[in-house]
Amino acid sequence: MTSAQTPASSAPMAPDELFRRVEASFLRQGMMQQLGVRLLRVEPGLCELAMPYSDRVTQQQGGFHGGAMGALADIAGGYAALTMAPEGMEVTTVEYKINFLASFQGGELRAVGRVLKAGKRIIVTTAEVVHHAAGKISTCALMQQTLVPVAKTY
Amino acid sequence: MTSAQTPASSAPMAPDELFRRVEASFLRQGMMQQLGVRLLRVEPGLCELAMPYSDRVTQQQGGFHGGAMGALADIAGGYAALTMAPEGMEVTTVEYKINFLASFQGGELRAVGRVLKAGKRIIVTTAEVVHHAAGKISTCALMQQTLVPVAKTY
Amino acid sequence: MTSAQTPASSAPMAPDELFRRVEASFLRQGMMQQLGVRLLRVEPGLCELAMPYSDRVTQQQGGFHGGAMGALADIAGGYAALTMAPEGMEVTTVEYKINFLASFQGGELRAVGRVLKAGKRIIVTTAEVVHHAAGKISTCALMQQTLVPVAKTY
Amino acid sequence: MTSAQTPASSAPMAPDELFRRVEASFLRQGMMQQLGVRLLRVEPGLCELAMPYSDRVTQQQGGFHGGAMGALADIAGGYAALTMAPEGMEVTTVEYKINFLASFQGGELRAVGRVLKAGKRIIVTTAEVVHHAAGKISTCALMQQTLVPVAKTY
Repeated sequence: MTSAQTPASSAPMAPDELFRRVEASFLRQGMMQQLGVRLLRVEPGLCELAMPYSDRVTQQQGGFHGGAMGALADIAGGYAALTMAPEGMEVTTVEYKINFLASFQGGELRAVGRVLKAGKRIIVTTAEVVHHAAGKISTCALMQQTLVPVAKTY
Repeated sequence: MTSAQTPASSAPMAPDELFRRVEASFLRQGMMQQLGVRLLRVEPGLCELAMPYSDRVTQQQGGFHGGAMGALADIAGGYAALTMAPEGMEVTTVEYKINFLASFQGGELRAVGRVLKAGKRIIVTTAEVVHHAAGKISTCALMQQTLVPVAKTY
Repeated sequence: MTSAQTPASSAPMAPDELFRRVEASFLRQGMMQQLGVRLLRVEPGLCELAMPYSDRVTQQQGGFHGGAMGALADIAGGYAALTMAPEGMEVTTVEYKINFLASFQGGELRAVGRVLKAGKRIIVTTAEVVHHAAGKISTCALMQQTLVPVAKTY
Repeated sequence: MTSAQTPASSAPMAPDELFRRVEASFLRQGMMQQLGVRLLRVEPGLCELAMPYSDRVTQQQGGFHGGAMGALADIAGGYAALTMAPEGMEVTTVEYKINFLASFQGGELRAVGRVLKAGKRIIVTTAEVVHHAAGKISTCALMQQTLVPVAKTY
């Protein structure tokens, strides 16, 4: 029960413009501010975020909370998708699935979201969450996500 | 590529004892405290949590953040699983998948996690996230989750 | 990153008409014929299928193949969704996620798909796969699925 | 609710031995024989399969069936995992999630499964399903999968 999707026509944006487009939405997310998340990188079909370790993002064993990794991956995938959405449109997450591979204390999490396919109706992304601490890099989680373009309401 | 799972033998606990077991872990989660989440109900194979609306859990349009719904569902499913784990053991989320159905402003989210199957090696749960406001109840998200029992480390 | 979905307006159909609508599509599926699948029940928002045990649907240990359970669940959810789609439209699976709980030999699998939410753009379903043999009933798999309505092309 | 996984210790096998190990299991799968699937390539942490177009694997519009893509991806990921499992053990799929990107008629599907993380208790893989026809290659589906090592029972 599957069928082809036609690509969305999206006017190319300058790198700075693309970053600002994503940043304008990102800064409105109370939860991301609350958790201390920073927007690092925006390219066509890609978005990278960072979340420093703090007691705002821990689980019962003192490691990064799965919910924090899930939120970070969701947003990285979502903003990667936004870079491919037609101007004046936003995207909304239909669903995602995330596997947790490891949890760490201290340092910082980085999530890189990448668009796998941007259709007119459906955008599919993946995101990888990686832990950085003292020069060591370890994969923590892998997400696969489905989004739809929606009209911007603000 | 599937095979049967044998049920875990878990000594029955009194309701109060079960609530305290979950609460002891819950209160250690910095992120849940940070987001204002409350533990409402614990029964064998079930856990219910509440998250009030605040600017700590919003996305860019002012509704509850998908990441907040995801974290709430993950924890509700996780603590439902914990009620079925052998004493002295904890559980850890292997993966989950969540569909978002609607987002709302104001009011409160409630998540109910339920164990579908508790095996010795794998526990499978579902969780439903529902929005409560002014007497109106609306389903917001549905999650399906896989966990494993692990040794308690604290 | 979530937003509300408005329900699709779908003219009610008589039960017989609904069964025939689904059957007309079902009989065109070479793979379902090949695997010996039968259409059992169609109601608004629900579809039930049966798959008898045979060497056409086994894995290496002689039990029902996970791929067979996955296909059965996908189709049960898909045809449940079709009952809610506007007339003249079909549905196509965007994605699904399935947990395997047990595998059995002999008997018959039944899958029941149910619509959780039917929006104009996105339909969300769940399906449960159950094994029936010698009067014993056992849950084998649980699926959560996302579909979109699409124009009928035949 | 996540924790680290320790890697499984798996004795290295010669390439031929690895191929035969996977083939011995693969040839026992009635469903794979039924659907005409061929085992193409086996490497440590990788498995590639092919499925030619036939009326045994079609949906109602004459394209490859989502259930066929799902089964192919499941098996490719599963046998990739088997290459990393301790000798004398098998693997069983706990769950998978698959996004469908496109469907095609004719030609052949290829699925490549890759191990992302092989722990003692949990193995995580991804698989990509690609359509090959007349020199054109198109991505059809992306899967993310969780497996566990289990004792071999035959």
